[in-house]
Amino acid sequence: MVHLTPNPSFSLTISIELPNTPGMLASVTHAIALRGGSIGQINLLQHTRKLSRREFVVDASSTEHAEEIVASIKDVPHVKVLRVSDRTFDLHRGGKIGMQCRMPLTDQSDLAMAYTPGVGRICKAIAEDPQQVFSLTIKSNTVAIITDGSAVLGLGNLGPEAALPVMEGKAMLFKEFAGIDAFPICLDTQDTEEIIATVKHIAPVFGGVNLEDISAPRCFEIEKRLREELEIPVFHDDQHGTAIVTLAALFNALRLVKRELEAVKIVINGAGAAGVAIANLILHSGARSIIMCDSKGILSRQRTDLNPQKQFFAVDQEGTLADAVQGADVFIGVSVPGVLTPEMVRTMNEGAIIFAMANPVPEIQPELVPDEVAVMATGRSDYPNQINNVLAFPGIFRGALDCRARKITTNMYVQAASAIASLVSVQDLDREFIIPSVFDKRVSSVVSAAVQRAAREDGVARR
Amino acid sequence: MVHLTPNPSFSLTISIELPNTPGMLASVTHAIALRGGSIGQINLLQHTRKLSRREFVVDASSTEHAEEIVASIKDVPHVKVLRVSDRTFDLHRGGKIGMQCRMPLTDQSDLAMAYTPGVGRICKAIAEDPQQVFSLTIKSNTVAIITDGSAVLGLGNLGPEAALPVMEGKAMLFKEFAGIDAFPICLDTQDTEEIIATVKHIAPVFGGVNLEDISAPRCFEIEKRLREELEIPVFHDDQHGTAIVTLAALFNALRLVKRELEAVKIVINGAGAAGVAIANLILHSGARSIIMCDSKGILSRQRTDLNPQKQFFAVDQEGTLADAVQGADVFIGVSVPGVLTPEMVRTMNEGAIIFAMANPVPEIQPELVPDEVAVMATGRSDYPNQINNVLAFPGIFRGALDCRARKITTNMYVQAASAIASLVSVQDLDREFIIPSVFDKRVSSVVSAAVQRAAREDGVARR
Repeated sequence: MVHLTPNPSFSLTISIELPNTPGMLASVTHAIALRGGSIGQINLLQHTRKLSRREFVVDASSTEHAEEIVASIKDVPHVKVLRVSDRTFDLHRGGKIGMQCRMPLTDQSDLAMAYTPGVGRICKAIAEDPQQVFSLTIKSNTVAIITDGSAVLGLGNLGPEAALPVMEGKAMLFKEFAGIDAFPICLDTQDTEEIIATVKHIAPVFGGVNLEDISAPRCFEIEKRLREELEIPVFHDDQHGTAIVTLAALFNALRLVKRELEAVKIVINGAGAAGVAIANLILHSGARSIIMCDSKGILSRQRTDLNPQKQFFAVDQEGTLADAVQGADVFIGVSVPGVLTPEMVRTMNEGAIIFAMANPVPEIQPELVPDEVAVMATGRSDYPNQINNVLAFPGIFRGALDCRARKITTNMYVQAASAIASLVSVQDLDREFIIPSVFDKRVSSVVSAAVQRAAREDGVARR
Repeated sequence: MVHLTPNPSFSLTISIELPNTPGMLASVTHAIALRGGSIGQINLLQHTRKLSRREFVVDASSTEHAEEIVASIKDVPHVKVLRVSDRTFDLHRGGKIGMQCRMPLTDQSDLAMAYTPGVGRICKAIAEDPQQVFSLTIKSNTVAIITDGSAVLGLGNLGPEAALPVMEGKAMLFKEFAGIDAFPICLDTQDTEEIIATVKHIAPVFGGVNLEDISAPRCFEIEKRLREELEIPVFHDDQHGTAIVTLAALFNALRLVKRELEAVKIVINGAGAAGVAIANLILHSGARSIIMCDSKGILSRQRTDLNPQKQFFAVDQEGTLADAVQGADVFIGVSVPGVLTPEMVRTMNEGAIIFAMANPVPEIQPELVPDEVAVMATGRSDYPNQINNVLAFPGIFRGALDCRARKITTNMYVQAASAIASLVSVQDLDREFIIPSVFDKRVSSVVSAAVQRAAREDGVARR
């Protein structure tokens, strides 16, 4: 059986007891290697004259692969597997985020200021001057992460409870990358009007709204209406976060292959939230040849099943994804695992650029076409060139909150994309480095600055 | 002008520059004392041969009082007031709570486990077994603090934004006193059905719902319906938190004056959320003589303006609050500042018990009747015997979350009240100590244990 690259999302902690004789440790590491497991940290737990206990961190590529690795260790004579635990599940127990108090609450005096009776004075000050809510409460640094669980990652309609781990992760990213306090709100309704009403009802606490994992086409109406009806920034990350980072990556990939956006033939596979937003943003930025596909093939004018967003991108050509990519320069996938085959890639033009961003498994595994493409990018953290929304949304919201933007504008998207792309210098630009690392500390500040500049240009900054 | 007791809710930081000559500091402290300011910490900021700069923390009793104190310092010759800042406002800037990540997010491996692609496995696990949301997300330790801003403290209908500082304070108390992560949700609607629908829509993330500062009689319907329609604990703190702590204080006050609950004549002033809940709970606990008053006087059978909750407590007697308290043993106020006069108190029976819990200013200032009563309690943190909900709600929710209670029951309220009362030993019981301090670390654990015991008795514990 061929296994794909092991990665930390299938990571195990395996505790092993083995006789303390020469060669035993080698047998264990050999057994793991035999099955393609990737060994990380090894801790010595106990070491006596007769035996030792060690804890191995081992990455696998799937649950089945993980089981094979454990079985392989168990087959080594005289070795006992004491405990196997799944690191990803361990890490999620009890949730990933919590609240913290920003000041001590240790005596009566603290209590009298932070709570009654002192807090009454703060309430009255806000009642008298509603704008004070921005300075005297959490509002100006707090974002709601809203989902209905209808399009969780690439996994489909899993519902609000199953979406929560993603929203918690998102809240962590907001905090770590931009110091923003974001709270997950998972709605038990998938009705457009109920979602809009609910978000409006809970809006007073929040300085911004990040929509997440809401399926198309409802997401378009929900975002549009909330943008119109709320006076705080509303941003659908699956659309615009993805579009911004894709555009940034595309700027640099084209720089690398020395082509112009206006001159390349682009195929976008996936005409949901992300696909439509990417198409809109690259069109806005100058692209002239875009063919979009959905699960039924090319969005052609002959089709009668297209919603308005798809109709806008309909072309004369008919056919399958394979037909679309023939002779294309750029493939952008925001669809489902495995739909782009190595054969299809070989029909693309020389110097092909592939962004295979399906989550958690890309449209094509990069290992399958190592030499056929000029640039390969995915949405995953365990391959080079990760097109990850975390490069955009923290800085977008940091900037929007800091200048108290009333709206998010397309100009902000474009300027944010340029800012992200600009962090890869000409010297560093490489087929495995077209986009900065998500851990590049400069990203959220340059994006925030670009957003604030755009907000002032567009007249939506309130300070 | 007579000033009431200075307290930390009107606390100033005053920076002063004064010549470095003998007697100058004494002149300043004298000027503050002259106006009745209470001096706390004094910091030396700078000290040269010629002058010194010091920062005084001074408590006042009102904004006007604070201004008088500053004016008094300014009158001291050769003294310059450099800066006056209001400590309560300073402390609220930017809000009082924030999010925190419960694990590091420092490298690709962390990201791959906490976010994509690893998190997809957690989502799928919850989609397959919905109960896993309790162990793999924040749900089991997360409470929504819900308000519509219609009855903020004793200040009235200030709206959702002005209510937020109270809800943030509440979230701090949840965290500090029970380790619970509570998030404020301030609704921009005061429509009963919209509130119910909104809370139900956002419920998936939460393990419990704490309703707060929602005015009567809507609060009764909202709580009742949410209790019926949600499978997580719903608790209206203004009703039941207040009732539980009042009952605990009453148990001990009666112990002190050696009277029985069944035998005393009780007047409750205020027939809103708290008043009705207190009346219900003390009735349930054995009280036989209860007269309730609202702003129009005694709830009498002759009145035609009573809602169903008030009708239930209507009596034959007619008259004003002054008529009601004549010959009463216990006054419980959950109403408005200053309605109980010293004259009225003098018409009560010997050994009167007064709980004057209006917030932030009580029905009668304790200073006005120091010797006329056997026991005086208020809702304030700056007087003895604080009847503070923080003695109840953190432990109530800790217990309910830990045993995964489906509902909150009246039995839980009574057992929680007994548990709180039991923490004041016979030896310690005193007219100034009928209820444990909110900083007594034992409180939330004994309340939590009592709640879990009651949940099992009532068959509502799910584990």
